Amino acid sequence: MNSYRSLRIALLGAGSVGSQVARLLLEHADELAARVGAPLELVGIGVRDVDAQRDVDLPRELMTSDLGTLVASADIVVELLGGIEPARTLLLDALGSGADVVTANKALVAAHGPELFHAAEILGAQVAYEAAVGGAIPIIRPLEQSLAGDRVTRVMGIVNGTTNFILDRMHTEGSSLADALRVATELGYAEADPTADIEGFDAASKATILASLAFHTAVPGALVHREGITGITDAMVAQAERTGRVLKLVAICERLPGEGGDRVSARVHPVSLPATHPLAAVREAKNAIFVTAEAAGDLMFYGAGAGGPETASAVLGDLVSIARRHVLGGPGAASSTHADLPIAPFGDVLARHELALTVADRPGVLAAVAGLFAEHGVSVESVRQDAREAHASLVLGTHTASEARIASVLDALEAHTDVERIDSVIRLID
Amino acid sequence: MNSYRSLRIALLGAGSVGSQVARLLLEHADELAARVGAPLELVGIGVRDVDAQRDVDLPRELMTSDLGTLVASADIVVELLGGIEPARTLLLDALGSGADVVTANKALVAAHGPELFHAAEILGAQVAYEAAVGGAIPIIRPLEQSLAGDRVTRVMGIVNGTTNFILDRMHTEGSSLADALRVATELGYAEADPTADIEGFDAASKATILASLAFHTAVPGALVHREGITGITDAMVAQAERTGRVLKLVAICERLPGEGGDRVSARVHPVSLPATHPLAAVREAKNAIFVTAEAAGDLMFYGAGAGGPETASAVLGDLVSIARRHVLGGPGAASSTHADLPIAPFGDVLARHELALTVADRPGVLAAVAGLFAEHGVSVESVRQDAREAHASLVLGTHTASEARIASVLDALEAHTDVERIDSVIRLID
Repeated sequence: MNSYRSLRIALLGAGSVGSQVARLLLEHADELAARVGAPLELVGIGVRDVDAQRDVDLPRELMTSDLGTLVASADIVVELLGGIEPARTLLLDALGSGADVVTANKALVAAHGPELFHAAEILGAQVAYEAAVGGAIPIIRPLEQSLAGDRVTRVMGIVNGTTNFILDRMHTEGSSLADALRVATELGYAEADPTADIEGFDAASKATILASLAFHTAVPGALVHREGITGITDAMVAQAERTGRVLKLVAICERLPGEGGDRVSARVHPVSLPATHPLAAVREAKNAIFVTAEAAGDLMFYGAGAGGPETASAVLGDLVSIARRHVLGGPGAASSTHADLPIAPFGDVLARHELALTVADRPGVLAAVAGLFAEHGVSVESVRQDAREAHASLVLGTHTASEARIASVLDALEAHTDVERIDSVIRLID
Repeated sequence: MNSYRSLRIALLGAGSVGSQVARLLLEHADELAARVGAPLELVGIGVRDVDAQRDVDLPRELMTSDLGTLVASADIVVELLGGIEPARTLLLDALGSGADVVTANKALVAAHGPELFHAAEILGAQVAYEAAVGGAIPIIRPLEQSLAGDRVTRVMGIVNGTTNFILDRMHTEGSSLADALRVATELGYAEADPTADIEGFDAASKATILASLAFHTAVPGALVHREGITGITDAMVAQAERTGRVLKLVAICERLPGEGGDRVSARVHPVSLPATHPLAAVREAKNAIFVTAEAAGDLMFYGAGAGGPETASAVLGDLVSIARRHVLGGPGAASSTHADLPIAPFGDVLARHELALTVADRPGVLAAVAGLFAEHGVSVESVRQDAREAHASLVLGTHTASEARIASVLDALEAHTDVERIDSVIRLID
């Protein structure tokens, strides 16, 4: 063993992930020291309330509510507070003092990643955030390093375990969305207020991070199109199953080639996948990220997307890697946004759609509806019609069309007197 | 753009991977320079025969058969020659002169990894070998960095595309091994001499590399137990299918807990997996590596395990990462074997087995056979008996037992007069 001095680790947050990080740091101290080449000394655990009840017994003498002082004394700050403030200010302070930073804070990295990376670059400090996307799944480092010589064309990921659990349950148990959500809440997969998950906000933060990394381009969260799963009905699930398909909420980050140069798109919405697609087999609250690159072809990364010990694994991986670099010397490798590609508006994104309509059951309706599609330049690939009483149900599959054209078709359908209802719209992935 | 000088890249080998690396380096020069922070200048391509026919048109003026001189002039040497010599000597020379090294040479890393890593460490140089296992799939870096703070308990991988293609074909087409091998050869998945693939030598090299990384322990190739797929019959495939299972050739690297401390095991052999196991869905010549760690739980990495552009993607990822570090300054992070755990003999490895026997069809045979198992301390979990003419077929599933005990049961069965034939033995994974 060499005799490098201890590295002073400040841990911010002692929730389900933080308490596991603390436990592993203390229990595996010798093994981690051997891997790093220096002891990792946990100098303090910053929390709001030192006396709060916690899952794991943590040494009382390490707890402090004075986060600023704790950060000022550290070589490496591990931030697991979540939310924007005070996390942002504390990490900028840490980087400003030359400390390295590990964070699992997806909201912060999505909203303020470039600011943090810039602050780190100025001082040759390191920022690592493997745990911010996909929990235990290594995806940040593969995109940043392993695929650094390739050109990523698409990243499509199941990056929110709660919504995957709900949709999986709707498929396997025939549950309604409300029932599946109730079970998810009971099992601790969903929070009391599930909005961030089911409305796709959480997945959108991750889409921002993945797109920025994959395309070396800062993608602002405001330009990520977002739809959650609240519009998914039992009927849509049943319809998907009839056609050998599975509904999933995915984050899609795409490089769109164009005559004026490539653009990028990041979006979150439900899709209908063939049951044979590798992402279709991702069950319960698991996550998986499917990456397509020009040379590498298709890759998939699968594992636990959340959970205290699982996410702690990713945090500790970052911590060991950063600490090794600290011991070896030399600055950290910063994330780069050199490509700075333009962001395509959502309307320019191309997709195949499947629409289910309830229409009046009289002659000429199909022709009228088909005419609307043609009028807006959307080519129809398949039609299935079922008559029931005075209504008919129409399921139309489109060829690839821009989201803008589909939106105008939907407007026209809503205004059409023979269309009683648009029952569902879902995007199809091959 | 900053004005760092060009980095001099020497490429050794211009086969299917090397020619793609050269093409991508030349075609994507601007984008790679932006990612690295310095231009990557391909200063030469070392080959045995400058005039040989190649898939990709490479600039004639870059080709040289003087590999030693080429290496001496480089900042980074990319070795794609394969085999032990002259690759080993060239890379030691390169590291000795302070150059960094990227290699896809699994045989070299498996046999001489510690020697290369040691040479690199002395001079603060870097060795990267992501392409040596799993082609395009990022697995080296995730094990080395992302899981650096966790304790890996098992790595189980489909790491040889040729044998996966053959076994997949036996399952899906009902082909014999010989027919499936013929198709694999016709499609270019198998070489004229398929020994390295079908006898498991290729997978064993990869098992050595994965075990060394996962357990921070140098695992010599000689201690990797190896069985190929040549013993797999149509009957075994059919039997697996009847029980909802799939046969796969896997490399297994395991941490075996024990009273005298943990030991490690690395081995290659066919296994029977439930059809619901994520590895069972890995089709054709694809690879996938399933990793289990204490905190992270189960992770899977999936993609193309071979192919020129695919493997070139991994090589370029290494090259860009190493070049970035070269520009930033500071030494490379070496692979560590600090844990240095003992290697468990294969006989100590635990597994469930399924044995198919042809026995004499007379009363008392089942009792005699069951007695043999009990005598050698192997507990039988299930028995299925089918009579056909004068023989009976017995399929016995065991509880978990050591390989040594199973070996002695097999010896005893072979010596037993009522046992006409041991038709098959396969290990079961849950």
